[in-house]
Amino acid sequence: MAANRNLATAVTTRSTASAPGNRPIRIGLLGCGTVGTGVVKLLRYNAEMLARKLDAPLQLIAVADRSLKPQPSLGLTRALIVRDPLELAARADIDIVVELLGGREPARTAILTALRNGKDVVTANKALLAEDGERIFHTAAEHGRSVGFEASVGGGVPIIRTLREALAGDRHRAVYGIVNGTCNYILTRMSEEGSDFGVVLKRAQRDGLAEADPTLDIEGHDAAHKLCLLVTLAFGVMLKPHQVYTEGISRIEPQDVACAKELGFAIKLLAIGKEEDGAVEARVHPTMIPSRHLLSDVRDAFNAIYVQSEALGSSMYFGLGAGQMPTASAVAADILELARRRVYDGRWAAHPLGYPMPAIRPARIKSMDDVVCEYYLRFMAADRPGVLGAIASLLGRRGISLASVIQRERSGASAVPVIMRTHEARERDLNLALKEIQKLSVVKARPVFIRIEEHL
Amino acid sequence: MAANRNLATAVTTRSTASAPGNRPIRIGLLGCGTVGTGVVKLLRYNAEMLARKLDAPLQLIAVADRSLKPQPSLGLTRALIVRDPLELAARADIDIVVELLGGREPARTAILTALRNGKDVVTANKALLAEDGERIFHTAAEHGRSVGFEASVGGGVPIIRTLREALAGDRHRAVYGIVNGTCNYILTRMSEEGSDFGVVLKRAQRDGLAEADPTLDIEGHDAAHKLCLLVTLAFGVMLKPHQVYTEGISRIEPQDVACAKELGFAIKLLAIGKEEDGAVEARVHPTMIPSRHLLSDVRDAFNAIYVQSEALGSSMYFGLGAGQMPTASAVAADILELARRRVYDGRWAAHPLGYPMPAIRPARIKSMDDVVCEYYLRFMAADRPGVLGAIASLLGRRGISLASVIQRERSGASAVPVIMRTHEARERDLNLALKEIQKLSVVKARPVFIRIEEHL
Repeated sequence: MAANRNLATAVTTRSTASAPGNRPIRIGLLGCGTVGTGVVKLLRYNAEMLARKLDAPLQLIAVADRSLKPQPSLGLTRALIVRDPLELAARADIDIVVELLGGREPARTAILTALRNGKDVVTANKALLAEDGERIFHTAAEHGRSVGFEASVGGGVPIIRTLREALAGDRHRAVYGIVNGTCNYILTRMSEEGSDFGVVLKRAQRDGLAEADPTLDIEGHDAAHKLCLLVTLAFGVMLKPHQVYTEGISRIEPQDVACAKELGFAIKLLAIGKEEDGAVEARVHPTMIPSRHLLSDVRDAFNAIYVQSEALGSSMYFGLGAGQMPTASAVAADILELARRRVYDGRWAAHPLGYPMPAIRPARIKSMDDVVCEYYLRFMAADRPGVLGAIASLLGRRGISLASVIQRERSGASAVPVIMRTHEARERDLNLALKEIQKLSVVKARPVFIRIEEHL
Repeated sequence: MAANRNLATAVTTRSTASAPGNRPIRIGLLGCGTVGTGVVKLLRYNAEMLARKLDAPLQLIAVADRSLKPQPSLGLTRALIVRDPLELAARADIDIVVELLGGREPARTAILTALRNGKDVVTANKALLAEDGERIFHTAAEHGRSVGFEASVGGGVPIIRTLREALAGDRHRAVYGIVNGTCNYILTRMSEEGSDFGVVLKRAQRDGLAEADPTLDIEGHDAAHKLCLLVTLAFGVMLKPHQVYTEGISRIEPQDVACAKELGFAIKLLAIGKEEDGAVEARVHPTMIPSRHLLSDVRDAFNAIYVQSEALGSSMYFGLGAGQMPTASAVAADILELARRRVYDGRWAAHPLGYPMPAIRPARIKSMDDVVCEYYLRFMAADRPGVLGAIASLLGRRGISLASVIQRERSGASAVPVIMRTHEARERDLNLALKEIQKLSVVKARPVFIRIEEHL
């Protein structure tokens, strides 16, 4: 234990020194389409923050893509671009291979090649992991390497880490996932507009929310792939897509959506995994869930995974499940985690606050005076003409304008509430105005204000 | 690199062997109140699963508590119980110290003692971390040890790991947290019942949802403590509670709750952290948020943290923020993570699927025939008397009973929809019944059914 502790101390001490000592972690990217380009952007725009967290720079040193043209504004120079993903996967000067080719081959061979050559791998390829995950994860374990796949389920929603780590001490009863944005978009539109499946699908295709060939999405296969990964993480069992009962949304009719509503339900394509007495239920199908349930409020292309656990009870994880930058955000988190392992020579480096301690700065706090909000205001005032005008003009003098006013009917009471909602105003100005308003003889009590966050 | 890789391979290889080789990881618990007892239960009930994930047993070897009596059913024998937390924190035979004493002292000294003596620490003590975190985390770094504090914010909601790891590649603009269950319960009840603050508070105290002295909760201080941790994780800056503008909910009046509703808002106590151009806004106060926003659906004692990030956009994390087992679940996850480091002698052990590969079993799949659901059924049938009865009796013959029926007004059309909602039924029975019903001459099309998940 003692030697061990010393080693760990040495690692931590090194980490607390400033960055220059640590060599760059070198990344090779396979496939530079939508998500790949997003990853290139994130590595570039967040370079300083990532280096601060990692205590070393992350360096993109090669991109394999059949048709990519140089984009100097993103740092994608001609020298960086290669054509053969398998060659890149084997290169000695790369630490982490990011596979965003999609599909089965050459992605599968590239990942296995990378792992056998001592690289860690990050992938968003759920279809491949669902079909060939066992082989890939075994190969990683044999070679002491890891595979990050946060982006493969829920896009940027961190459900992989949540099930693997955050809820790791708990037993799970069920996972319910809205994990296909295309289906959720179509069902939301059908429900809110009463439209036909076919009509909404066409529009989704036009708007880039559905593929030209949408089968994988609308028939539930994509959700089934993701369910395989969720079930493995939740219950510790290996599951293949052909074992998942899979039914898509193409046969849902507007009248069923309408009847569901009437009965108090919303129709969602759910990926459902349950475990009881060691037997696993795994099914993907249109499902009616109560309209009052949080999952039913997950609209359009958003994803959410709802987990039922013995100790924790219900929890839910919500966000964008697809798209360039949300998916790239998950890929970047995986890169960072695998890179940290490299920086610390394979030792487990604990940064409980996410940054090495010396990289954490004291906060520069914005004064409340400078905070800008909309405000709800309530004045208890004499029930007399001119009161509203007097209050509004004192607000106006401080540059605070009104978005709406509620005045109750005259009641004969000595004081009645005057309620106002302001446009955005600076807190300092509001406080000054309220002080002046309070001095008005018609105002009978200390004004009440509540801050509004409208655009969150 | 090569030597390094071999070492990592050696670790992985060892991990793929079966468990007996690994020594137990020894845990000392400080404070065995509500949450402490929950942790004892989880370690006991989930022992097999935890050992499978860890490849080693977790062993509770001492509990320091001034007043704890032996509870043999939980394995809390007399021999396990000690009185002095500081003595326990320094004991040579303990690997991980779990601090659930709460308050400042002796918790602070116990944690520092444990770290200096080479132990890792798990704590749920947000007040202490917010005030003294800098000292504690620096001490941990100096001694190459770590501090797990997932339970300190959001109870079982994994927001600490999410900000620290899952969203680590992204920049955050804002976090909005409903992080105090007592306040959220009171505000929800005020809104749904129109009750006074004082009335609801008293009921909450009676029902154990608020402390006898509720100041820390209702005046926003608890939320401010949590916000300090959220801001550090989201923005990489150190923040103290006195820097957080803090305003509680005790002055909220029913009329303001009602007016908020009328204006399309809900009132929530939010912990808000924002960053712009290096300046941090940190404030806790009652806030009006649009009623259509997901956060406004977070009711009663539930917590949720809503994060706005550059790449990911909006994401939300929802669950129980307090209570014995939810909080214990977060503590157990931290114990598991720190224990894994011990098992692998401080090396970073990647189990991408949460379990060592050999511990993952093939799934035993429940056949769809055996799945039990409620069902929505739609039949297109002749608009004639007796149709409903014929269908219902064929369902009944298979043991399927009806929860409700919707019949449209007679329309003169050749076929009208007959809509039924069943009670729970076995899928095999449903399929058999539907086949028989389809043969009825009055039934004009293939029956439609959609599974209902009512109790998720």
